[in-house]
Amino acid sequence: MADPYQPTHRTTLRRLPGRAAYDRETVHAILDEALVAHLAVMTDLGPRIVPTTYARVDEVVYVHGSAANHLLRSAASEVETCMAVTLLDGLVLARSAFHHSMNYRSAVVYGWARRVTDEGEKRAALDAIVDHVVPGRTLEARPPTDAELRATLVLALPLVEVSAKVRTGGPIDDEADLGWPAWAGVIPVSLVPGAPVPV
Amino acid sequence: MADPYQPTHRTTLRRLPGRAAYDRETVHAILDEALVAHLAVMTDLGPRIVPTTYARVDEVVYVHGSAANHLLRSAASEVETCMAVTLLDGLVLARSAFHHSMNYRSAVVYGWARRVTDEGEKRAALDAIVDHVVPGRTLEARPPTDAELRATLVLALPLVEVSAKVRTGGPIDDEADLGWPAWAGVIPVSLVPGAPVPV
Repeated sequence: MADPYQPTHRTTLRRLPGRAAYDRETVHAILDEALVAHLAVMTDLGPRIVPTTYARVDEVVYVHGSAANHLLRSAASEVETCMAVTLLDGLVLARSAFHHSMNYRSAVVYGWARRVTDEGEKRAALDAIVDHVVPGRTLEARPPTDAELRATLVLALPLVEVSAKVRTGGPIDDEADLGWPAWAGVIPVSLVPGAPVPV
Repeated sequence: MADPYQPTHRTTLRRLPGRAAYDRETVHAILDEALVAHLAVMTDLGPRIVPTTYARVDEVVYVHGSAANHLLRSAASEVETCMAVTLLDGLVLARSAFHHSMNYRSAVVYGWARRVTDEGEKRAALDAIVDHVVPGRTLEARPPTDAELRATLVLALPLVEVSAKVRTGGPIDDEADLGWPAWAGVIPVSLVPGAPVPV
């Protein structure tokens, strides 16, 4: 875990480089906490994004969809992929409009996705996606049948070209604005579960 | 408001078309509630995504960033853009692993972004971005100076090729699984503000 991801031309943060993180612990923590990723691919019709569930297993991120899903099918073999995961942590209210900001933790993964064909890896990936949402859930749920497995496309995106970006703390106003009569600070936000609704 | 966005080849949902929505009210409500968008552009180095704040004003979405921001500069003039906004509403636990799902509302916008050069439009766009996070905030905060305005790049993405996708309700298990001994239902989730932390 000690060795960081190697920064590349694409993952090197030029603006506010102090917000960049390349260590595996930070990246893994973001990927493990978030529930939705946005996956971008280039198609003949321009760039496309889809929101998707996913799971990290060691140094691989798995996403899944219908075997008929056109975007995932392209991502499986033909085109390069970029995946982003963003956790919003707070609204940062400065005294100046200009210095308003957000506290967040985001991770971006670049790479070519691999279609998972090995049945064992495919089952493990699907289990990981379900357990990512509710840990231990696959111990209770009815496991996938062979037909369900065939109807599902699973892609593996290796964690090789990866970076994280993190902003924490309060607003950073200019010295001259510190007397401006507006409340300044952070409104923390978090994704909170409500009472479960059984069916 | 009554006329819907015209579905195009790209925005027509082929799988689960019942989840698609093209009416302006649904799309506007999603764009107005979410706080973070993911913006994808194609670059010489492959697809890239950035999370960003934004605001909707009528039939335009505005995003902003540093005038030196390479990705936004490309998006301003050279490349096509795709923007996605996703609100996670619930974790859908089915009795079968296969039918696990999420309740969500997402909107996707395709198009070519326009760089905002008119000062009045630029100020209004930046105000809208601040007020999107905390309504009325621009009445209190110190407005942007001319220098701050010059240091900021604002892009306008017209709401023309747009669609929404919405899943609501409980899990849809196969008849044969209804006796499976696992809890099934929905765990609602929502982004909740905590106690403000002044500086």
